[in-house]
Amino acid sequence: MSNSFVLVINSGSSSLKFAVIDSNTGDAVLSGLGECFGLPEATVSWKYEGQKSEEAITGEGNHHELAIKRIVALIDTLGLTSLLVAVGHRIVHGGEKFTSTIRIDESVLNEIRDLSELAPLHNPAGAKGIEAAMHAFPSLPQFAVFDTAFHQTMPAKAFTSTISNKLYKDYGIRRYGFHGTSHYFVSREAAKMINKPIEESSFISVHLGNGASVCAIRDGKSVDTSMGFTPLAGLMMGTRCGDLDPGIIEFLLKKGWSQDEVYKELNTNSGFMGVSGLTSDCRGIIEAMEQGHTGATLAFQVFTYRVAKYIASYMVSLESLDGIIFTGGIGENALPIRSEVLAYLKIFGYKEDLQANEKARFGHAGVITEAGTPIVMVIPTNEEFVIAQQSVELLKSYCS
Amino acid sequence: MSNSFVLVINSGSSSLKFAVIDSNTGDAVLSGLGECFGLPEATVSWKYEGQKSEEAITGEGNHHELAIKRIVALIDTLGLTSLLVAVGHRIVHGGEKFTSTIRIDESVLNEIRDLSELAPLHNPAGAKGIEAAMHAFPSLPQFAVFDTAFHQTMPAKAFTSTISNKLYKDYGIRRYGFHGTSHYFVSREAAKMINKPIEESSFISVHLGNGASVCAIRDGKSVDTSMGFTPLAGLMMGTRCGDLDPGIIEFLLKKGWSQDEVYKELNTNSGFMGVSGLTSDCRGIIEAMEQGHTGATLAFQVFTYRVAKYIASYMVSLESLDGIIFTGGIGENALPIRSEVLAYLKIFGYKEDLQANEKARFGHAGVITEAGTPIVMVIPTNEEFVIAQQSVELLKSYCS
Repeated sequence: MSNSFVLVINSGSSSLKFAVIDSNTGDAVLSGLGECFGLPEATVSWKYEGQKSEEAITGEGNHHELAIKRIVALIDTLGLTSLLVAVGHRIVHGGEKFTSTIRIDESVLNEIRDLSELAPLHNPAGAKGIEAAMHAFPSLPQFAVFDTAFHQTMPAKAFTSTISNKLYKDYGIRRYGFHGTSHYFVSREAAKMINKPIEESSFISVHLGNGASVCAIRDGKSVDTSMGFTPLAGLMMGTRCGDLDPGIIEFLLKKGWSQDEVYKELNTNSGFMGVSGLTSDCRGIIEAMEQGHTGATLAFQVFTYRVAKYIASYMVSLESLDGIIFTGGIGENALPIRSEVLAYLKIFGYKEDLQANEKARFGHAGVITEAGTPIVMVIPTNEEFVIAQQSVELLKSYCS
Repeated sequence: MSNSFVLVINSGSSSLKFAVIDSNTGDAVLSGLGECFGLPEATVSWKYEGQKSEEAITGEGNHHELAIKRIVALIDTLGLTSLLVAVGHRIVHGGEKFTSTIRIDESVLNEIRDLSELAPLHNPAGAKGIEAAMHAFPSLPQFAVFDTAFHQTMPAKAFTSTISNKLYKDYGIRRYGFHGTSHYFVSREAAKMINKPIEESSFISVHLGNGASVCAIRDGKSVDTSMGFTPLAGLMMGTRCGDLDPGIIEFLLKKGWSQDEVYKELNTNSGFMGVSGLTSDCRGIIEAMEQGHTGATLAFQVFTYRVAKYIASYMVSLESLDGIIFTGGIGENALPIRSEVLAYLKIFGYKEDLQANEKARFGHAGVITEAGTPIVMVIPTNEEFVIAQQSVELLKSYCS
């Protein structure tokens, strides 16, 4: 399997990301997106050899199925079919059942469906993607890589909610955490960057994208993370509130808000969007702030302050700290966000290297603190690479 | 006013704490509690010159009124009436209106009532206490000391919720914080202990009682605190959950729990109670843990881990840190809790002085870290003293 390509599928409720990944290098030969599923304007778009194409999804039936059919035909036309050795699926919730990547069979698929109660938007979509891919590639082995799996090493003191333990036993309410594949990937890259075995390294990984989470990683294992039972917890995000006084929800319900109105507000009208009153996009926030917009400035301040507080709080989860890692769309690119967070960390001796911080953008990794001061790194994440790698690794173990 | 005694009243929804305080020393000449208001078993009990007494509340009418009548008669019988110069009321919520202690007149009383929406259990009870005391002591000036006032110096980045700013404008939803009187008092005592002006000192104050909160204090001013819009936020407490993934509430509501059931659970069956499945009392938790009880051990671990994370997170709110302060019933007495939190802080150089930690209990203040390592102090709180002092201070300013 010197040339091992994996079709990686990340199936959302109304969209589907896909890529054909070289499992040795992580490079995407082909990548694309199906979106607007369920609507007349459903499309599939893709990028191949630098060229972008787009097509409407037409025909009767399930858009996940139709999109995957189109992707199969596309892969075939491009002559990539024979290179594929596996299909790797990103699945959001693996509950306590799935602690690592697994080959999918009928029973695994059923368990992913069973976990839909914990991820009502994501797991059914993931299951749809698996079904469609199994149908389209009956001879290719399929693997599930879970967003939650990396965090299953958290100790009870970190994953236990502060509510009745009976609710954990009855409903599985606890911290699961998400973004596991990203935190896994960047911590491994970070260990390479500082030339230390991952099994002896401790990092705090800060994934800032549209969703955002922080993870404390000790000896290569997740020991705490900011997302919780759901991806609504933790940091403030593009449109999500993150941590919130639970009394606020009671107040709004008592004010006559319906449960659906409250949760729509917390999921889609909070975070950057809600605080700024302007946009959920971090670039928009920074631009508006630079032009003196009050709401955007406040959103920037609240966000960075909370990121810094989370980083500091996770220092107590570790015996020592080898580095803080920024990743995700915001973490990899937003210079002012990183500068502001670093300013908060001065009390621990961190000192920004401004030039290095400017350089570590647009896909470039790098250490962004001054030599001789504690290390902060920028590392572009690559979740598809992990999915492809782990699928091939597992495939090899089946073959050998 | 060399001998200035203040009747301090802390009026809850079904109880009323009272004390006659020497505003120079903070000593309580008389202290007592009315409880079970609204029930046949309503009583008033008190302590005077070391002796305890108790009496049933009888007669028709409002128990707050009846209790205060009994207290007035008691104070009279003991010959204390002529010593009183003021009545000081602890009021939970001052909103954004009250940033310091204020003399109560009809308009202030109305504003306290108006703020009941923000503290539906506490402010109406506080108002009842004020009315009864005004009626009983028509010639004594009355003062309101607010639990929220000390925190009104928080910057917007700390008090802004991560939800739509419109909800702040429409409903006043933001972080207010509570326990302000306690954080104020112990930070002043801490500054004296380290011989530094409070205006140039920075502390993290950790009030651990049945309710619990952490406060970052910079140059003597609150700059962040863990309780929020309501006292349900922040640390895990005796029966309250503290910080909680807001998605958990949605999950329970979708499971068919009523709003009242959910909030009863989060307020009265969570925290030490919920996690241990045993007791809300920290002493009970520690005893059970020492006997190997699994739930109690988990509750202890979750609690201390979260306290340590909060302390660390507030380091970024300060430019430097002069000391961490433990106070409140648990903070002043629970040796294993403090030891465990200090163990987490090792990464910052903190080192417990075990002997000093053992000594600083049962009302004794002290530094509990080793000389030459960062300072952690135990300081018994005295909210009544602050209420008495501030009432007399304000009274003097009116007289002069």
